[in-house]
Amino acid sequence: MATRETGNLFAKLTPPTPDERFETLLQRDGLTLERIVSHGQATPDGEWYDQPRAEWVVLLKGAAGLRFEDEVEIRQLRPGDHVLIPAHARHRVEWTSESEPTVWLALHVPESQN
Amino acid sequence: MATRETGNLFAKLTPPTPDERFETLLQRDGLTLERIVSHGQATPDGEWYDQPRAEWVVLLKGAAGLRFEDEVEIRQLRPGDHVLIPAHARHRVEWTSESEPTVWLALHVPESQN
Repeated sequence: MATRETGNLFAKLTPPTPDERFETLLQRDGLTLERIVSHGQATPDGEWYDQPRAEWVVLLKGAAGLRFEDEVEIRQLRPGDHVLIPAHARHRVEWTSESEPTVWLALHVPESQN
Repeated sequence: MATRETGNLFAKLTPPTPDERFETLLQRDGLTLERIVSHGQATPDGEWYDQPRAEWVVLLKGAAGLRFEDEVEIRQLRPGDHVLIPAHARHRVEWTSESEPTVWLALHVPESQN
C-alpha cells in the first residue's frame, strides 16, 4: 500500500496524564486540526482562552463543561456535540470527566476574509 | 445564552435514506467541513472520487471500506480511523455498514500553498 497519513482518534487514550495532550493532525495555510485528550483537567481558575482564530470543536468521547464569558450557564457537552467558537470569544473548560478520557477534535481556522 | 452555532454529529441518523446525506458544518476561505451519513451506500461501480482539494476524513460511527486506485487492498475503517486523502488521489467507498448508520466527518482543504 502507498504510505498515507492515517491514525485513530481513539487510540492511546490511557493511561491518564497530568496534563491534557494535544496532537496536531493537520496543519496548512493557517489551519490547524488537533486532537485533545483530557482526563479530569480544566482551565485553571480565573483563566480564559482568548484565541486569534475561530475554533470549531467537537467532543467525541467523554464529557465536559464549556463556558463562555458572556454566558451564565455552563454548556454540558456530550459525545457528538460541536460548537463554533468565534475568534476572541473568551471561553474556558470548566471540567472534564474524571472517570474516562475525553477526546476532542478542534479545528482552528483564520476568521473569514470574505 | 448568546446564539452560537452548535449541533450534534450523532443527531438525526435515522431513518436510513436512499442517498447519503451531506451537511455542511463550516465553510470559509476554501475550507469545507461536512458531516456525511451513509447507510449501506457505496460509490457506484467503476466510479472514483477525484477531488481538487485534499480531504481529511474520519469515520466516527459505523464501518466502511475505502479503496485507493493505487492500492490493491480495501482499507477497513472503524470508529476513530482517519485518513488524509491528497488532492486528486483517486479513491472510492467500496461499502458502508448496512446494519447501522455510518457517520463521517470530512474536512476539505486547498492543497498547501507553502
